[in-house]
Amino acid sequence: MEEILIGIVGAGTVGGGVVKILSRRIEKLRKERGLPIRIARIADKDPKRREQFAASGALCTADADDILNDPAIQIVVELVGGTTFARKLVLAALSRKKHVITANKALLAEYGPEIFEAAAQEHVSVYFEAAVGGGMPIIKALREGLVANSILSIKTIINGTCNYILTRMSREGLTFAAALDEAQKKGYAEADPALDVGGGDSGHKVAILASLAGGGYVPFKSISIEGITGIGKEDIAFAAELGYTIKLLGIIKKSGADDLLDVRVHPAMLPVRHILASVSDVYNAVLLEGDAVGQILLYGKGAGEMPTASAVVSDIIDVAHNISCKAGVRIPMGYYSSSQELPVKPIEAIEGRYYLRFTVQDKPGVLASIAGLLGDEGISLASVMQKEGFSEKSVPVIILTHTAIEKNLRAALKRIEAMDYIKDRTQVIRIEE
Amino acid sequence: MEEILIGIVGAGTVGGGVVKILSRRIEKLRKERGLPIRIARIADKDPKRREQFAASGALCTADADDILNDPAIQIVVELVGGTTFARKLVLAALSRKKHVITANKALLAEYGPEIFEAAAQEHVSVYFEAAVGGGMPIIKALREGLVANSILSIKTIINGTCNYILTRMSREGLTFAAALDEAQKKGYAEADPALDVGGGDSGHKVAILASLAGGGYVPFKSISIEGITGIGKEDIAFAAELGYTIKLLGIIKKSGADDLLDVRVHPAMLPVRHILASVSDVYNAVLLEGDAVGQILLYGKGAGEMPTASAVVSDIIDVAHNISCKAGVRIPMGYYSSSQELPVKPIEAIEGRYYLRFTVQDKPGVLASIAGLLGDEGISLASVMQKEGFSEKSVPVIILTHTAIEKNLRAALKRIEAMDYIKDRTQVIRIEE
Repeated sequence: MEEILIGIVGAGTVGGGVVKILSRRIEKLRKERGLPIRIARIADKDPKRREQFAASGALCTADADDILNDPAIQIVVELVGGTTFARKLVLAALSRKKHVITANKALLAEYGPEIFEAAAQEHVSVYFEAAVGGGMPIIKALREGLVANSILSIKTIINGTCNYILTRMSREGLTFAAALDEAQKKGYAEADPALDVGGGDSGHKVAILASLAGGGYVPFKSISIEGITGIGKEDIAFAAELGYTIKLLGIIKKSGADDLLDVRVHPAMLPVRHILASVSDVYNAVLLEGDAVGQILLYGKGAGEMPTASAVVSDIIDVAHNISCKAGVRIPMGYYSSSQELPVKPIEAIEGRYYLRFTVQDKPGVLASIAGLLGDEGISLASVMQKEGFSEKSVPVIILTHTAIEKNLRAALKRIEAMDYIKDRTQVIRIEE
Repeated sequence: MEEILIGIVGAGTVGGGVVKILSRRIEKLRKERGLPIRIARIADKDPKRREQFAASGALCTADADDILNDPAIQIVVELVGGTTFARKLVLAALSRKKHVITANKALLAEYGPEIFEAAAQEHVSVYFEAAVGGGMPIIKALREGLVANSILSIKTIINGTCNYILTRMSREGLTFAAALDEAQKKGYAEADPALDVGGGDSGHKVAILASLAGGGYVPFKSISIEGITGIGKEDIAFAAELGYTIKLLGIIKKSGADDLLDVRVHPAMLPVRHILASVSDVYNAVLLEGDAVGQILLYGKGAGEMPTASAVVSDIIDVAHNISCKAGVRIPMGYYSSSQELPVKPIEAIEGRYYLRFTVQDKPGVLASIAGLLGDEGISLASVMQKEGFSEKSVPVIILTHTAIEKNLRAALKRIEAMDYIKDRTQVIRIEE
């Protein structure tokens, strides 16, 4: 049987992991599955990164075109990252009828339709298990294992950096800055952590999950995203006192009457007994609800050399099976196109419960005023906690609301924040049950 | 494109669920995936069970041969259960070159090699996602999503009935009998609960998982199986006091030097902070460790009409994709054959920590005697708890051991149980960390 040749572009840590795994398993794949896979070429501009593959048997090159121009290579693995060169590379590979495997969440979240349409036109596949949740097979679960279901909701902790920071803040009482510093020292956060702590990375992954779950294209830019930079250690402490844990959540819900998909990323308070509340450190989890299967949870490491490489290799084997049995494009992605764009519910329209932390002047009548202004917008209080102040000038007032519409909450907050007893920005954290 | 016709044998609750799901999703499958699936025939001996499908559009029959003899039917779904008629049916379907989908764990655990060899010979597939873990896509994860990994271990709570009973014993202090009675009244346990509470059902599922993880055939009869009938409410209470929860676990471990697979089903004490300790009620979970991916958990409902039907339908769609793109047998199961039988580690050879509950006469020197006899076999104690007696005649002595070899423990217990201060059977529960 003819060998199935693979070209890898981007010889970083994940690329190294892919070579490592395949060298271990290549004989087993040939014997048990009849798949004669071989990594033929590896491209990277950096000679030092290429060096680690000198003994791998693959031809190493600085020029990705060497892979594109090799007609024997049927699968191109894109591990470059970013959306400029990677986009060009992926489109060029598809135009040469090569299957593409990518771990690039930003690329698919922002240019998914262009890429899937190009793949459909050339009758080749794009696989992307590693783009979401590292080694957890969540893409396969959504596209295949749970395909009998209409996905009613997904709640996910999908960024390990943020989860590590929030876990450290929660366990050790650290400030955000101190926990971030620790995460950077341990290699869990990049030197520029903005994409992680700002929620953008979670947003990219949630856009992909929402497109798969919704059966249409959910553009990245349509998703409401908040990061964790504004979470104070006092919020973590108050949450704990109230029986909650704060997590950065990706939320996807099929809402009722208006038929709009509710898709968002923001810090959320979860009851401590919630199954996602126990997902700690760098672990990720996806909790989904299907109309047939009910609740399903997937939990694992969402990043790192070997977990990510595990996902890339499972895609390589999947595509190699398709090639080996001449299946062509086995599972079409036609719905993930710009013509199938799904409208997303505006964040103002969502309903939920809220944690509010006001920083107020310690004087009589303040609580009555806040409660009155919330009441004017139809927002009723589930519980109130007034604390001794951290400074002499102000005290925190914590309110948990009953279910309210976000638009009304914002209107009430606008009026409250104009009052002279308000001494600092009001903290708002959505509560998920 | 030609329709892909399906025949279902066994028109019980799961069959009903399959028809329900497909009727909801048939248009979407045709439009988005190009799969023109149709349930052509449903067979069941019971006319009352056939009645529910009168309006389904399928031809209903009492005779499964009508399905076998219909050359247009390419997929046979076996939902009969048992290993006599089901075995004949599956082999007959395969011999007519029909793909088979089954939810029958006993059949695959006991006759897997015969069935997979017949399928290989006829170049058709056997899919069986619903046989293990209901709607959780664990079979797909092992065969595809995690195929890049060598699976180092699996720990699983895979029988909802037992988990419900242990949860109720733990939360409400019920006896086993009272909790079983409650489970039967709620429909979570069968009138004859032996296969569930005796551990046999878990054993069937674990045999299948072990064969997939081990890459060879693990015969059901080679697995050491203990059920939960001997767990007393006092064991649950003492476990809680010591910081443990008792669960019925399926355990699969690749052991080191001797290269034998450690495969067993028995009640186990788990630290309360263990991720599996929080899996309650009828939920199932599979915690696995891969050499690349690290720890992965899958959690969901392991039984019931719709979760099981969800798995069956995902298999139908998988096989339909294979048919539609003429992929033949996409993923071979050649390793799951009698010639590839994997030796299983004898239970006497395992090493671990143990919870021991002795029922002894309340007199001086007893604890010293027990500790001495354990010490003679090289077993040292991690902690000892002596309690006031439940009766005047005897008191419980609870010992947690350090790591010991089971063979040595059994030798020590044999000598201890011969002593006249022992007043009742000694309880032994293995501890898993």
